[in-house]
Amino acid sequence: MDEFSLIRTIFQQTQLTAAGVHVDLGIGDDCSLISVPGGCQLAQSIDTLVADVHFPADGDPFMIGYRSLAVSVSDLAAMGATPHSFFLALSLPGSDAVWLTSFASGLAAMARKAGISLIGGDTTRGPLTITVHVQGTLPKGRALMRSGAKPGDEIYVSGSPGEASAALPFILGEKAVHTASERRLTERYWQPTPRIALGQWLVEHGATAAIDVSDGLSGDLCHILRASGCGAELFSDSLPVSDVLKEVCGGQALSKVLGGGDDYELCFTWPAGKIMPADVPASVHRIGFVIETETLLLDGQPYRPESYNHFIQRGS
Amino acid sequence: MDEFSLIRTIFQQTQLTAAGVHVDLGIGDDCSLISVPGGCQLAQSIDTLVADVHFPADGDPFMIGYRSLAVSVSDLAAMGATPHSFFLALSLPGSDAVWLTSFASGLAAMARKAGISLIGGDTTRGPLTITVHVQGTLPKGRALMRSGAKPGDEIYVSGSPGEASAALPFILGEKAVHTASERRLTERYWQPTPRIALGQWLVEHGATAAIDVSDGLSGDLCHILRASGCGAELFSDSLPVSDVLKEVCGGQALSKVLGGGDDYELCFTWPAGKIMPADVPASVHRIGFVIETETLLLDGQPYRPESYNHFIQRGS
Repeated sequence: MDEFSLIRTIFQQTQLTAAGVHVDLGIGDDCSLISVPGGCQLAQSIDTLVADVHFPADGDPFMIGYRSLAVSVSDLAAMGATPHSFFLALSLPGSDAVWLTSFASGLAAMARKAGISLIGGDTTRGPLTITVHVQGTLPKGRALMRSGAKPGDEIYVSGSPGEASAALPFILGEKAVHTASERRLTERYWQPTPRIALGQWLVEHGATAAIDVSDGLSGDLCHILRASGCGAELFSDSLPVSDVLKEVCGGQALSKVLGGGDDYELCFTWPAGKIMPADVPASVHRIGFVIETETLLLDGQPYRPESYNHFIQRGS
Repeated sequence: MDEFSLIRTIFQQTQLTAAGVHVDLGIGDDCSLISVPGGCQLAQSIDTLVADVHFPADGDPFMIGYRSLAVSVSDLAAMGATPHSFFLALSLPGSDAVWLTSFASGLAAMARKAGISLIGGDTTRGPLTITVHVQGTLPKGRALMRSGAKPGDEIYVSGSPGEASAALPFILGEKAVHTASERRLTERYWQPTPRIALGQWLVEHGATAAIDVSDGLSGDLCHILRASGCGAELFSDSLPVSDVLKEVCGGQALSKVLGGGDDYELCFTWPAGKIMPADVPASVHRIGFVIETETLLLDGQPYRPESYNHFIQRGS
């Protein structure tokens, strides 16, 4: 069996089709075919992860597969879309059946959680690079865009941002994992939870804008502010600083919450004065307000978001 | 201006949006949004080109851009789809404004020809790798698939296959280009013509199966035969051997026609006994017939397609 037959076989044997997703024609022809129900829009996004730039090449292949799909599905969550199907373009330096089987299993675990099906792909010989194209459906005209925030809106973030970035020294092998808290952080890096249900709920309940936090809360919030033509005031004592983060990062915890990326939580804006129903399907924290002046304030002082560097090439 | 701002600026300044393609939301949010008209299917494909595997890294960046999009659009042509939009995931070792501007211009030239618009992308730091995801629309249930060939059907190929692969020694710099014919071959490699109008015409006029010739005519025909559960008989004196190919390749010309890839012509099957209307929008050649026995015959003898190696890593 040649290299690419092996890869095909591994991907065919791994369950990469979600229940309930209808695809007219999947892998094996020149194109796949899908039908989009009338009145729907298709939300689509593409992301590339390069080994030793976006993840350590020697990481657990199951986790690499899981995380590769999760970070793309997170873009669908940020629009409020229902995941439908995805494409995988994989460049590999060689073919290692054990690695590929584990990678495909990680991909499949995330695919099952997100209810998304692999419908096309391409495998090439080259440096380890993973490109995922995802698509999901939305009721027409209802997408959660970055541009909808208005002065007075409340600003929220889900979960506990900052934890994934606090894991980097452990992910990079600069520090060894000793405590349960340190292990928890590495799980947050490798197994982010795309906030699919939250995104859909926000569409349904009238949130005004949303983004997923991949480059850090303050920086990603600024994308909303720029697209919406306004500013924000945040309050440090409202920011969710988890106990785990305090334990591992001490005095650096708050700056991880504001600047750490790789969490894939949702940051969103909510209409001023509107009561948030109690059935919101994730823990969310009100961290500030949208203001008219196009600036970002923290406790009343101008705050300049640091740019977040994802996993940086070792040796550089 | 940082590296990625530069890249964004170059791509924004280059006209990468085709006239007449409607996109609800393009680049700049978490996802793009499109609506698919009722009664339509979306045909989609993804392809990766790795530098020094699928094209020489030191090639003309305009040509690299042009060809990257052309080879993906060719998959849409092979289904009979109308090109709609595409995503570009680009990994770059660094940012060279001259290279990027030329690459984007090549991409734009092909986008204009194909009537397709860039609606999303991702740029990462890494070894030069180009992934393109394309999508097009089709009247529901009308796609040209590989599985529709029936015994008795006529087999056709468009254009003059073999020319692109005959260009490889010139593309690789192993031979210098001296003659007009040699130049013509290198153009065929760098600027393939996706057979969009032919694919649509074949859908309209009832062709039974189609594939685009990327890995060689005989090998790609075998994909149709396997998917359709039948065989084929080809006739060597019916195969289109161009004068240019004869001039440059001499006695090797026929084997280039049968085994050379990278041409992106269409190979298709046509119902037995059905007259082909004269308005077919490309030159096409009848090269044989589909037979019941699952084998490939050339002039009555079993023929085993060689596997075609695209541009192979230099030094390996």
